[in-house]
Amino acid sequence: MKLFILGCYSATPRAFTHPTSQLLEIKNHFFLIDCGEGTQVQLRKHKLKFSRINHIFISHLHGDHFFGLPGLISTFRLLGREKELHVYGPKGIKESITLLLKLGDSWTNYPLVFHELSSNTAEVILENDKVSVTTIPLDHRIYTNGFLFREKPNERTLNIAATTKYGIDKSQFNNIKKGKDIILESGKKIPNERLTFDPTPPKSYAFCSDTAYNEKLVPQISGVDVLYHEATFLESEAHLCKKTKHSTAQQAAQIAKKAKAGQLILGHYSTRYKSIEYFKQEAEDIFKNVALADDGKCFEL
Amino acid sequence: MKLFILGCYSATPRAFTHPTSQLLEIKNHFFLIDCGEGTQVQLRKHKLKFSRINHIFISHLHGDHFFGLPGLISTFRLLGREKELHVYGPKGIKESITLLLKLGDSWTNYPLVFHELSSNTAEVILENDKVSVTTIPLDHRIYTNGFLFREKPNERTLNIAATTKYGIDKSQFNNIKKGKDIILESGKKIPNERLTFDPTPPKSYAFCSDTAYNEKLVPQISGVDVLYHEATFLESEAHLCKKTKHSTAQQAAQIAKKAKAGQLILGHYSTRYKSIEYFKQEAEDIFKNVALADDGKCFEL
Repeated sequence: MKLFILGCYSATPRAFTHPTSQLLEIKNHFFLIDCGEGTQVQLRKHKLKFSRINHIFISHLHGDHFFGLPGLISTFRLLGREKELHVYGPKGIKESITLLLKLGDSWTNYPLVFHELSSNTAEVILENDKVSVTTIPLDHRIYTNGFLFREKPNERTLNIAATTKYGIDKSQFNNIKKGKDIILESGKKIPNERLTFDPTPPKSYAFCSDTAYNEKLVPQISGVDVLYHEATFLESEAHLCKKTKHSTAQQAAQIAKKAKAGQLILGHYSTRYKSIEYFKQEAEDIFKNVALADDGKCFEL
Repeated sequence: MKLFILGCYSATPRAFTHPTSQLLEIKNHFFLIDCGEGTQVQLRKHKLKFSRINHIFISHLHGDHFFGLPGLISTFRLLGREKELHVYGPKGIKESITLLLKLGDSWTNYPLVFHELSSNTAEVILENDKVSVTTIPLDHRIYTNGFLFREKPNERTLNIAATTKYGIDKSQFNNIKKGKDIILESGKKIPNERLTFDPTPPKSYAFCSDTAYNEKLVPQISGVDVLYHEATFLESEAHLCKKTKHSTAQQAAQIAKKAKAGQLILGHYSTRYKSIEYFKQEAEDIFKNVALADDGKCFEL
């Protein structure tokens, strides 16, 4: 699992800071999470292939998470895309994108499938044999969802030495990886655990932005491997959180601690601060394993 | 009159090329012409003050001329703007921007005034004692206007030596600059031409993008000082013009020649070409005074 940060600053795009967008590589899926203005330029700058993106998840319809989407959708058309593109986001996303395409008489020549979200409880919005994606209802000024990405349990790993020892044919390997026992020609049964190693534990990633501090989300993300939680402010500006429905770095760390997350990644920094290191320092008072998102940074999870 | 090119490449924004947007400084007005994605970042990069922009002119609703507008309008709000902002553009621009602001519950806290255009003949859309702005109906795949910006005639310039010689009081200077004759206390009449020099001739600028080659626009821009005319293609790709309703560099030069323009600025280049110098070479076969727009370039007109 790899997380590429295309942008992680709040409010407006600036010369050297970009609004929210992330590319999550998970089990050979490339999920784009949020799409602030300029996301397509960030994809190009970092030489990330547009064509690998088939699913886009939009947390909420504030411009800094969303205004890059019409352009990206249009660019997919110019690049000759033919594959389906799935867009998950709050109700209204379809109407607005459709209106912009209509005004430009620029309909896509690929199937553009909207999955509009309006539930206030968590729901599975994508599931296949590799991954599941579940919404995380957040507490912001407008309807907002985070997203919980979970790998499905991995297959057991083949113990090649053991299969050779027992003279097992390759045609059996898929069955073995799925956990099945093997009966040799002699009639002898070889239990699966002699032929395999335990699989790598499946990973999970929770994206929680934008949101006020809200303990209600803790049970859903309990035990998550990596939590990205917004930290717009430092404690010195904590008084701004109530009105803006954002969080401080310490509040993000509280959520990570309560959820027993493996790692906390901070982002969505207000650009009022001179250094983002302050966010890390504040969060580390509460929670140990803190990393700072930054534009262009790639996390191997 | 100054023209700052924020972006002048066609189609999608890329790492180092930007879609159409220009800032025209004319008689102390700062007119933004078109607003492709990333325009607000270009304004920041080149340290151009957002607050000086009170009028935005949108030629048409293709993304590369328009998708930066929702973000710019939102940023004006975040910057605490209080002044009116006037947006001129094709019918539908109000509905789309309003819908995006509504979905984000992000209404502007300054008056946002839309002037929707739907006429197929030229119309004066802004006029005051300094400038006039007239639409130039263009020939593109969707409803598109260019814009003709004209300075109003300048005041006559005071001949200070002459006013001193006749002992004329400063209180008369405004009248003199407006062209009035002066009657001295002695009763002697001093004709205005003895007290003033001829004014600088008023300048004009025509923005014509996007458009197919269309001689119909020639009469309207006849004698224009500076013509910006799109040149998406070179002659080698002239066959693409019909379907896309774009022009070649030579066609742009033909229009400049027929209109007896003072200078031709080319732009809206397709990014398929290795160098934009080719556009200049082709146009110069037809018309002498050709300049190339490029992102970040400023023309003193």
